[in-house]
Amino acid sequence: MKLDLSTVIGMILGFGMVLMGMMLAAGGDVGLFMALYVYQPDSAAITIGGSMGGVLMNFPLQKIMTFGKVLGKTAMEDPKNTAFGDLINEMVDYATEARRNGVLALDAKTEEIEDPFIKGGIQLAVDGTAPDQIEEILQLELDALQKRHEDGQAILLKWAELAPAYGMVGTLVGLIAMLANLSDPDSIGPSMAIALVTTMYGSMLANMVCIPLAGKLQMRTRDEVTRKEMVISAIMAIQNGDNPRIVRQKLLTYVNPSLRESLASQETEG
Amino acid sequence: MKLDLSTVIGMILGFGMVLMGMMLAAGGDVGLFMALYVYQPDSAAITIGGSMGGVLMNFPLQKIMTFGKVLGKTAMEDPKNTAFGDLINEMVDYATEARRNGVLALDAKTEEIEDPFIKGGIQLAVDGTAPDQIEEILQLELDALQKRHEDGQAILLKWAELAPAYGMVGTLVGLIAMLANLSDPDSIGPSMAIALVTTMYGSMLANMVCIPLAGKLQMRTRDEVTRKEMVISAIMAIQNGDNPRIVRQKLLTYVNPSLRESLASQETEG
Amino acid sequence: MKLDLSTVIGMILGFGMVLMGMMLAAGGDVGLFMALYVYQPDSAAITIGGSMGGVLMNFPLQKIMTFGKVLGKTAMEDPKNTAFGDLINEMVDYATEARRNGVLALDAKTEEIEDPFIKGGIQLAVDGTAPDQIEEILQLELDALQKRHEDGQAILLKWAELAPAYGMVGTLVGLIAMLANLSDPDSIGPSMAIALVTTMYGSMLANMVCIPLAGKLQMRTRDEVTRKEMVISAIMAIQNGDNPRIVRQKLLTYVNPSLRESLASQETEG
Amino acid sequence: MKLDLSTVIGMILGFGMVLMGMMLAAGGDVGLFMALYVYQPDSAAITIGGSMGGVLMNFPLQKIMTFGKVLGKTAMEDPKNTAFGDLINEMVDYATEARRNGVLALDAKTEEIEDPFIKGGIQLAVDGTAPDQIEEILQLELDALQKRHEDGQAILLKWAELAPAYGMVGTLVGLIAMLANLSDPDSIGPSMAIALVTTMYGSMLANMVCIPLAGKLQMRTRDEVTRKEMVISAIMAIQNGDNPRIVRQKLLTYVNPSLRESLASQETEG
Amino acid sequence: MKLDLSTVIGMILGFGMVLMGMMLAAGGDVGLFMALYVYQPDSAAITIGGSMGGVLMNFPLQKIMTFGKVLGKTAMEDPKNTAFGDLINEMVDYATEARRNGVLALDAKTEEIEDPFIKGGIQLAVDGTAPDQIEEILQLELDALQKRHEDGQAILLKWAELAPAYGMVGTLVGLIAMLANLSDPDSIGPSMAIALVTTMYGSMLANMVCIPLAGKLQMRTRDEVTRKEMVISAIMAIQNGDNPRIVRQKLLTYVNPSLRESLASQETEG
Repeated sequence: MKLDLSTVIGMILGFGMVLMGMMLAAGGDVGLFMALYVYQPDSAAITIGGSMGGVLMNFPLQKIMTFGKVLGKTAMEDPKNTAFGDLINEMVDYATEARRNGVLALDAKTEEIEDPFIKGGIQLAVDGTAPDQIEEILQLELDALQKRHEDGQAILLKWAELAPAYGMVGTLVGLIAMLANLSDPDSIGPSMAIALVTTMYGSMLANMVCIPLAGKLQMRTRDEVTRKEMVISAIMAIQNGDNPRIVRQKLLTYVNPSLRESLASQETEG
Repeated sequence: MKLDLSTVIGMILGFGMVLMGMMLAAGGDVGLFMALYVYQPDSAAITIGGSMGGVLMNFPLQKIMTFGKVLGKTAMEDPKNTAFGDLINEMVDYATEARRNGVLALDAKTEEIEDPFIKGGIQLAVDGTAPDQIEEILQLELDALQKRHEDGQAILLKWAELAPAYGMVGTLVGLIAMLANLSDPDSIGPSMAIALVTTMYGSMLANMVCIPLAGKLQMRTRDEVTRKEMVISAIMAIQNGDNPRIVRQKLLTYVNPSLRESLASQETEG
Repeated sequence: MKLDLSTVIGMILGFGMVLMGMMLAAGGDVGLFMALYVYQPDSAAITIGGSMGGVLMNFPLQKIMTFGKVLGKTAMEDPKNTAFGDLINEMVDYATEARRNGVLALDAKTEEIEDPFIKGGIQLAVDGTAPDQIEEILQLELDALQKRHEDGQAILLKWAELAPAYGMVGTLVGLIAMLANLSDPDSIGPSMAIALVTTMYGSMLANMVCIPLAGKLQMRTRDEVTRKEMVISAIMAIQNGDNPRIVRQKLLTYVNPSLRESLASQETEG
Repeated sequence: MKLDLSTVIGMILGFGMVLMGMMLAAGGDVGLFMALYVYQPDSAAITIGGSMGGVLMNFPLQKIMTFGKVLGKTAMEDPKNTAFGDLINEMVDYATEARRNGVLALDAKTEEIEDPFIKGGIQLAVDGTAPDQIEEILQLELDALQKRHEDGQAILLKWAELAPAYGMVGTLVGLIAMLANLSDPDSIGPSMAIALVTTMYGSMLANMVCIPLAGKLQMRTRDEVTRKEMVISAIMAIQNGDNPRIVRQKLLTYVNPSLRESLASQETEG
Repeated sequence: MKLDLSTVIGMILGFGMVLMGMMLAAGGDVGLFMALYVYQPDSAAITIGGSMGGVLMNFPLQKIMTFGKVLGKTAMEDPKNTAFGDLINEMVDYATEARRNGVLALDAKTEEIEDPFIKGGIQLAVDGTAPDQIEEILQLELDALQKRHEDGQAILLKWAELAPAYGMVGTLVGLIAMLANLSDPDSIGPSMAIALVTTMYGSMLANMVCIPLAGKLQMRTRDEVTRKEMVISAIMAIQNGDNPRIVRQKLLTYVNPSLRESLASQETEG
């Protein structure tokens, strides 16, 4: 696990630009900047707290509670999921072993396999499970993983849907109070400014946090699904006794051309 | 059936934050708070009553009438639907029995089975119905359940679509009357405030009630569908005389990894 | 055919609430109410007439002309389409007859069958048409029915899309004329009021008429499609010589659990 | 090819209503009407010209150049595409001939067939091409036709998406200039009026031209696809030596019930 | 690779029209034009820089870094991808050679083939790989290409989604500062003008750059996918020993009718 640079840099850049805009709009006056944009606890409570309430209503408690763990994934990345070259070499090794000494020969290797998905799949093949049952079990597991990951995205996207709505409700609340009492014209401007802060918070929460993080989660899911699809494809080929060269060729189709070339050259050497 | 905490907490949090915002906007004056935001019977009639009319036009009476029962589901949850561990143990028991003494041996057990879906499926297997007919009947039943559940979500989502539209129509009605009679400038503000209340009600009904409840219903449906898919998968395997170990492994793919580990350890002990 | 209560009640409730709101906004003055909201022939021409022009451009004349007949369906309902119990009994009777005396014995019965879809399907089975050809023909007919019904919904949904757009164009037309001539400040309010009426008409046409009626048509289609799917499923089983008990069980999966219980009890008695 | 009435009437009605609204807003003054709404070359350039630029960026030049030909389809209709009765009779004739004298007997007829799709299909059957290869070739051709037609719709829908956006950019350009120079209050109204014209043009181009024409193209595609699906279904049945009565029955499922009845009665007579 | 005319002309037309509109709004004063619309570094930083931050958060760094290469594709086109006539002739040549001298005879030709996709496919056929394995490998490669191309579109479309949102946040920031300080009425107009510039930049970035370029990328993908589908179809037919005439006929179904006629006439001559 290592820090995901693009999430961190993107967040700094996105918030940095907007905060700079606020600072300039406040004429460089830090006190005014804080008063206008940052220290607005009521607006934050309505927009952030209120929309969190909507999200809580929408999802079972259990899914909300595992959400924090999922969220961590957006800032940290698991290099394993994109190390397609290592995965191809590993799977081709198993295919070579199975081709030479039979699938049962892999039994000795299963102990060393770290990835539980690969381990489980190889174990099924070693146990002599029917090919269509192996494929069904591995595919069911992949589907279940996708569903779990989609929950995390769903929470973020629902928040992105509700935050601007709560922001608008907050602005309407402020406008209604202001309009009902126009007697003091001097208070109109500041009252409207405060009312608009909830709309701004809602839009910022949705577009600067929730939507990009949901997108990043989706990208992570795709990488992990691609990796697991490669594993399924390889295990079915190993169980089928396919030529290791064909196994490598199939797995290479999943990676992009530049990586493929460097990996294909390894084959020639190996 | 027990109270669904996240629905209740979420609703309290969501409404609490917005009501607090209204109270603050009214300067803490309870009378003003009531007059501005709560006691607006005309706005409520147009937005809530009007959009209910639209929903009635859209759906057959019969579906509207079963809607109340469906809605109850969002505040109460049936723990059975997420007790995947118990379900797996139950189905593996049947598989073991069928493997040892033949599928007919399950006949004695069907009396005790509470869940009508499991009972019906086992009965079909005991009756010697052809496997593809068992699968077709159970799948048809699952599809029909999904359709019925989707009706409840559809009503809420249609309400969420129409409520803001009726709110906007109400605001236009108010604005038109106000604009046609600008002679009294003092009444402009209060008139506009009243006109905006319908928009606020529409947005609140949609985003603070209908959309999150529809989401919760969708989550419930998913849990129930997953449970029934597990039952179908298990019954087909039982009828096929599959090894109970394979049955357990297939069913475990449906649950998340942390639960799976604790359930897998039971297997080793058992 | 009988009156569809929910369409009628919904329309009365939806329009009643909005008209009441208009009446209150006009201070209970019927003349003002008429002048402000109802007698606005120009706005109605632009919004309703104009968007009808857009709908005409979008669809072939022939589909527009059968649209009236389709629309009638939203206010009248055919109780046959939801009388699933009668249908199940009828199909199980045919299955029993075919099981006892062969499929040819149904030839005598075809004369009495009123529903042309059931009649045609039974006739195909009696004629000894190959099962996959029967299924193909009935399925093609069902697909064609769905396409025709979707046309009606498509017209309403297109109208719902265009009406607010024409309303907004009308409002822009009014605003531009008003802004170009701000010399008379007294006319600003009334001019803007009139300009906003087209937006209000567009939103009312879309959200209070077109969208709910399209939804009702979709519900009707679903009922009719479910009914025809049940017929296809039954005829394939009859042709296949299935046990009438299995036929009943398959058909019961299409109906909701409460109806199913009462129908299942008939089976035990019968 | 004959004029498509609904496109022409719809366009006259849609534009007529809006132009009438403009005329009324201009107080019946033709000069003012022209000055306010029609003679606005800058607004037209930004909205129409600018969005055409966006469309050009979006599509390859070659697709833009064939777009004019496609557009002609929306105002002209080919009666052949909806003459399902003639098509059924023609295909049943071929089926009868093939049933009596073998598929090779159709060789003599191919010269007379005008429709290249029917001709090509019959030729393939006469040449003794394998059934699955005939179906694959005809289906590929149908898919390619659908893709080509979708390009025309895609251009119109992209224009409908970009035109309001360019209109809004134009309005912002006008507003910014006006707001930067508020010193002359008399110019505020007219400046805003001019700024709003680009928004109005964008909405009119999208909703009164592009969206309805894209819809008409979609309807035309559907008719042509239905016709070609009927041809494929018939040719596969002819090649298979199906009974002409079954061929007629299959093809009749594609047409609506009223037309079907009149065509079915011809069968009894024939 | 040659310059893609429609992208370049479209961009010049789109920007030209809007810049002309700005120039006219500035009364032809270049200084004012620059000050009002172009030299707004704060607005550009918030809208362009901020939304780039959001895009960075959404995508892995590796995909962002290959994005530049993908973007180049929108301005340059590879004529090979639309030279369907040459491709058909090439594939029919291989089919003729394989039909006459066996698939192995193609081994000598593979050296000369430039396109790695065709080369790889022919090589698989020459190596005697099983047909379904050839199809699976080529199809997997096509799917992977589509996924990679979709990443480029996804980045542009996400930018098109976030840019207007950041623009609106920037406008709210400006409005809040202005409303909080209404004491100087002369500054209201200019302040609002500056606030609106961020909204304008956001809309321009989305609608005049990102959306059309994403559309162009999608078109390019479609051409490349069509080309590769033709190659797969041809290689499967070659491996199957199909008649070259059937190969040509299948490939011709992918091209539009006018091109098809000219290509078909070559066949008669050849």
